[in-house]
Amino acid sequence: MTEDRLSKQIEFLVEIDKLKTVFRNAFLIADSDRRENSAEHSWHTAMMAFILEEHAQTQVDSPRLIKMMLIHDIIEVDAGDTNIYDAHAAMDKVSREQRGAERIFGLLPHDQRQELFELWEEYEKGITPEAKFARAMDRLIPLIYNYYTQGKRWKEDGITYAMVLPVYQEIKENCPALWEFALSMINECVSKGYLPEHY
Amino acid sequence: MTEDRLSKQIEFLVEIDKLKTVFRNAFLIADSDRRENSAEHSWHTAMMAFILEEHAQTQVDSPRLIKMMLIHDIIEVDAGDTNIYDAHAAMDKVSREQRGAERIFGLLPHDQRQELFELWEEYEKGITPEAKFARAMDRLIPLIYNYYTQGKRWKEDGITYAMVLPVYQEIKENCPALWEFALSMINECVSKGYLPEHY
Repeated sequence: MTEDRLSKQIEFLVEIDKLKTVFRNAFLIADSDRRENSAEHSWHTAMMAFILEEHAQTQVDSPRLIKMMLIHDIIEVDAGDTNIYDAHAAMDKVSREQRGAERIFGLLPHDQRQELFELWEEYEKGITPEAKFARAMDRLIPLIYNYYTQGKRWKEDGITYAMVLPVYQEIKENCPALWEFALSMINECVSKGYLPEHY
Repeated sequence: MTEDRLSKQIEFLVEIDKLKTVFRNAFLIADSDRRENSAEHSWHTAMMAFILEEHAQTQVDSPRLIKMMLIHDIIEVDAGDTNIYDAHAAMDKVSREQRGAERIFGLLPHDQRQELFELWEEYEKGITPEAKFARAMDRLIPLIYNYYTQGKRWKEDGITYAMVLPVYQEIKENCPALWEFALSMINECVSKGYLPEHY
């Protein structure tokens, strides 16, 4: 170990503290007055991957999957969180996130920079079994939040049943074993009035 | 998969959302007006383990180490965070945390309950290479926070140099390769006035 290597690692670990100040759209279940930040979200999705991986369509490499969940949103330190229903913000999402990845992962020693960058790119491409499952987790969690907060986020944003369906398709495609559960949760949200068909 | 198994897993994942409302003593680097919660902390220490594991004294099983970091504070959903300098709260810490572990991990299917319970017990005992390294990370992070927030937490709590040394011994014992770095950070905190020798 060189001192330089350790100081780069510490600099990166200090920098990513900022992820705790990037707020997502979702409200917490445990405190629906507060929005979730991307650091908490990364922990929660890593725990989902840990607990639910047996439901993956193709067997996943568990350590890689958990690492992918831990780092999948770090680029938001620079790029911010992009609301999935915001078409305007989506326009420059790729370039913003790419620049974020280059700067933030670039703080690390070269080998680790490569590892994290590749893991993040793999998540974004969504092709490997780990990336597919990770993306399904990232879609599933806001559905669960909305279910347990009586659709608070959907209602504040005017989101309808027709708008969520294409978004949740990623669960159906990437993790069929959890689709039945997700669909019954969506249908229950509609029948309970959490997810209006129109406003 | 039985439906019952999945519903237990989801119940557990919903329950641990509460960890985002358990606030620790430490202030964020990125926003020193706000205390860190235990979910963010779990993510940050998992990232530390991911990035710093090469500095472990004995080679660690990386996936086990990261899982240990992810779950090491989940018992705080019931037991709350116990300030390391609070001798009174320390008196019933073990029994509070044991009850928390039994209830919360007990929400999971039996095999997963066992896995998480054993991982948490291993962390608490601090004997295996993974547990030693995990405990060193848990000690190192508040030192880094205090360094980058000019000792804000120490000063508000009246913590002195003599008080922190026994706490940071766990870094020296469990991860000698990082002790030189930690000690130079402590010494710099003293010389810069972040960590008073007395008040």
